[in-house]
Amino acid sequence: MEKIPVGILGATGMVGQQYIALLANHPWFEVRYVAASPRSAGKVYQEAVGGRWNATRGDLGGANPFAVSKLTVGDANDVSQAVAAAKRGDLAFVFSALEMEKDEIKHLEESYAAAGIPVVSNASANRWTSDIPMLIAEVNPDHADIIPVQKKNRGWDKGFIAVKPNCSIQSYMTPLWALLQAGYEVQRIIVSTLQAISGAGYPGVPSLDIIDNIVPFIGGEEEKTEQEPLKILGKIQENSFINAPGPKISAHCNRVPVIDGHTACVSLEFGAKKRIVLFLSG
Amino acid sequence: MEKIPVGILGATGMVGQQYIALLANHPWFEVRYVAASPRSAGKVYQEAVGGRWNATRGDLGGANPFAVSKLTVGDANDVSQAVAAAKRGDLAFVFSALEMEKDEIKHLEESYAAAGIPVVSNASANRWTSDIPMLIAEVNPDHADIIPVQKKNRGWDKGFIAVKPNCSIQSYMTPLWALLQAGYEVQRIIVSTLQAISGAGYPGVPSLDIIDNIVPFIGGEEEKTEQEPLKILGKIQENSFINAPGPKISAHCNRVPVIDGHTACVSLEFGAKKRIVLFLSG
Amino acid sequence: MEKIPVGILGATGMVGQQYIALLANHPWFEVRYVAASPRSAGKVYQEAVGGRWNATRGDLGGANPFAVSKLTVGDANDVSQAVAAAKRGDLAFVFSALEMEKDEIKHLEESYAAAGIPVVSNASANRWTSDIPMLIAEVNPDHADIIPVQKKNRGWDKGFIAVKPNCSIQSYMTPLWALLQAGYEVQRIIVSTLQAISGAGYPGVPSLDIIDNIVPFIGGEEEKTEQEPLKILGKIQENSFINAPGPKISAHCNRVPVIDGHTACVSLEFGAKKRIVLFLSG
Amino acid sequence: MEKIPVGILGATGMVGQQYIALLANHPWFEVRYVAASPRSAGKVYQEAVGGRWNATRGDLGGANPFAVSKLTVGDANDVSQAVAAAKRGDLAFVFSALEMEKDEIKHLEESYAAAGIPVVSNASANRWTSDIPMLIAEVNPDHADIIPVQKKNRGWDKGFIAVKPNCSIQSYMTPLWALLQAGYEVQRIIVSTLQAISGAGYPGVPSLDIIDNIVPFIGGEEEKTEQEPLKILGKIQENSFINAPGPKISAHCNRVPVIDGHTACVSLEFGAKKRIVLFLSG
Repeated sequence: MEKIPVGILGATGMVGQQYIALLANHPWFEVRYVAASPRSAGKVYQEAVGGRWNATRGDLGGANPFAVSKLTVGDANDVSQAVAAAKRGDLAFVFSALEMEKDEIKHLEESYAAAGIPVVSNASANRWTSDIPMLIAEVNPDHADIIPVQKKNRGWDKGFIAVKPNCSIQSYMTPLWALLQAGYEVQRIIVSTLQAISGAGYPGVPSLDIIDNIVPFIGGEEEKTEQEPLKILGKIQENSFINAPGPKISAHCNRVPVIDGHTACVSLEFGAKKRIVLFLSG
Repeated sequence: MEKIPVGILGATGMVGQQYIALLANHPWFEVRYVAASPRSAGKVYQEAVGGRWNATRGDLGGANPFAVSKLTVGDANDVSQAVAAAKRGDLAFVFSALEMEKDEIKHLEESYAAAGIPVVSNASANRWTSDIPMLIAEVNPDHADIIPVQKKNRGWDKGFIAVKPNCSIQSYMTPLWALLQAGYEVQRIIVSTLQAISGAGYPGVPSLDIIDNIVPFIGGEEEKTEQEPLKILGKIQENSFINAPGPKISAHCNRVPVIDGHTACVSLEFGAKKRIVLFLSG
Repeated sequence: MEKIPVGILGATGMVGQQYIALLANHPWFEVRYVAASPRSAGKVYQEAVGGRWNATRGDLGGANPFAVSKLTVGDANDVSQAVAAAKRGDLAFVFSALEMEKDEIKHLEESYAAAGIPVVSNASANRWTSDIPMLIAEVNPDHADIIPVQKKNRGWDKGFIAVKPNCSIQSYMTPLWALLQAGYEVQRIIVSTLQAISGAGYPGVPSLDIIDNIVPFIGGEEEKTEQEPLKILGKIQENSFINAPGPKISAHCNRVPVIDGHTACVSLEFGAKKRIVLFLSG
Repeated sequence: MEKIPVGILGATGMVGQQYIALLANHPWFEVRYVAASPRSAGKVYQEAVGGRWNATRGDLGGANPFAVSKLTVGDANDVSQAVAAAKRGDLAFVFSALEMEKDEIKHLEESYAAAGIPVVSNASANRWTSDIPMLIAEVNPDHADIIPVQKKNRGWDKGFIAVKPNCSIQSYMTPLWALLQAGYEVQRIIVSTLQAISGAGYPGVPSLDIIDNIVPFIGGEEEKTEQEPLKILGKIQENSFINAPGPKISAHCNRVPVIDGHTACVSLEFGAKKRIVLFLSG
């Protein structure tokens, strides 16, 4: 099978590096275009990322052995460079790992889509846009049905935007979905998370705050953990998403001195007095 | 005020050292007797504890500045030594920080009490003994009313045994009690704990297991967290304790790479759909 | 003895907090004036420092129990406020823990001295100024003899500036001095340091770089470690400092995942083939 | 090329696991025999190693994907099992990662060699045996010339023993050798090491000793670091090893809170006043 050529926006950042590492030797995809800030544009990827390669260590190994390291970095703000890569056959769509202000990301991802380049985004900027699906492949693949609506709304031909949810909910959405499918009417969920420092990006959490410590609050994370599942469990109605009415989720998010991996203690309540407690790591 | 002379059993262990550090400069108590294993007996405390002083660092400072350091260590297995100390006026009661098999602790604490020496114990061995109170001063001081019954049951004159509960529940029992007192009928509690490695004693958790990691299960800890509150919230009836019927507690206990301090994420549920979420550190 | 009233410049920063903690209950000094950036000026210290109190935990305890917490923070850029405090009898001199660009610190410390307020500085800005002594009380107290020269050079009446050296050399300068005094002609020194993250200030080292890691280079630190001892061991000649000709120092500085405390492995070489190896923590 | 079948003694221990992980997909070797203590013998490897698989995480990944996991574990004390494996063609030689008393290891490794099975050992038991080479392939491959002498001394036919040196010296022996080959007459070496906790085995260093701390002494490690290089740089003379007369090595070994990897700050001195400082990680 011939591999699908993909691009990475924000390729020199921590999430961008993870995309590159995880897509090395991928059976379907091959990274053939990378773009980052103007500061990195024009450099060879290896040189642009320099000592920052391997920021999270866990998955990337001690060196950057990938073909990607020889690619010349494009300017992520210049959509025409990606369009040219697409014309050369080097890019069927992009993964967005942009690190900017939310408004800028929203605007830039729309520019790529408007230029005919589909965007699959890790950023939170477009998660609550009414015609953009927030997808977990095992849970709500049918939400992709909004894409033709999105294209029509925007007057886009080939491009579109799809996003993934916040990292904190990924561990428990799949088993929650399995329980719901099996007829367990989960009404309320209590979640305590223990989240790795890599989730805060780089430079992120100062070491003085987290060595020999936990940080018992992560700004904005609890809201995302409580609300995003409702869009994912919701449905498309009149060309927009209607949130699911439940389950009600109460989340408490802790930062722990661990490089990679999020853990969740999840208590799912259904019926009058029944409860399942899950412990999940991812 | 003249200070009350007290003794520490297991004085060279990690918990014993904490007792000594916390009782230094205490307004009521003065440590005038220390006892440990036969291996330490006969040595000066400073020498017996040697490089192991300050095992948990957090509270003890870099040196052992206390008068206690000059005391000669007694043999904890030889109750007559404590009796002699009591006769000299050096000991009104003992704090037990014994580190032995549960059966041995139970037996040895009873021997002290039988010999006329009250025992206040940190060990878990006697927590579920039917005529021994498990006390949190702010919650169930009236449980001390069982002590005359205990003395009568055992034929003890001056001695008795009282215990404290497991460290994991101390952070939330006081606010839970305050809520119950204020009329909130808490029916169910979901607890996730993040517990420091000092809770596992020394040498305890191997560093290879916990550096850059959490350990999402602590054997026996969840059972204690779920059951001990029911005795503490229970009442004395017919010369024994009757557990409280609730609240139902579901606990998940995590070990985290932190030297000192336990944290608890606690969700308290009362009435049909009301809930309070507490976040507590101690 | 009546205590000497002192002020702290940069009182809300990490080093400033350490000064306040270390001077609590000090037998000689009492902090009666605190100053910081305009952002903090006018607030009560407790409120200005807020959640950032206790940034390094090691020494400060869990709360700020000091009288200092009620002081109103002055504007460190406004020397006249310190002058007014001095007139009130609240300030005999200031400790400088300023966190600014070096040139700004140099200028501001000079302004205080010019206004009649002696400055004892933790900052590196004035360490190599030719008429300012870099003092370790046990090693070169006679370097204070430059102060009259400094005052004359600058036309200052009561004010002056004295500084302390970089933290990395404090552990070994005292034993080095003792060896030199005892006649050991140390010619070369090899130093490897293991330095805590608090030495990098706040927010300092990102946790992603240092958890489960060491960082084997600290920019600028090796130069300071190799050169500052030569001024300290030097002498005053013609109203200026002449560096000592030796010992030659070769330093390698490592950052380690420890909150507080610097360690040094020091090999001191004297005569043809003699060597002493010291291991020092501070 | 057909791969050479090898066995691992002590296969369930931490070092044994590392051998298995590092030999997965090795171009020359294939692990076809594993042996451990009688407790593990008879079990399938996957089951015998159980939750202890992946003790050091760094290299082994999240699971045990190797064919080795299906092998039945032999009894390492029963040499005849390895002999049978050799007869089946499953074992040309063994890597020894035995974790026992030194005398026991020495005796057991000799038993394998006597039974015709070559032993390449990670253990320190035989490092100073006069007819056993301590090899670093890039430095002293010619020391293998002692093997015929060893066989003759012992009356062994096919079997023999070769060992590797302590982990702390591996990082600097190769560049030291390159310098010596290039004519730099290194006379003295000052080494400070920063060594990971995995070097202490499992359960090894208690977490209470090493989280937020360094441990500035590793028993026995400094002696090994100072002496083993002299055998490696020595030569064979009259059927035995003569240590090299130098360089003189002074080592200081620190344990640091890092899972994997040893670092060395090495100062090499040659001629009267010349010095090279190396910083090496491995």
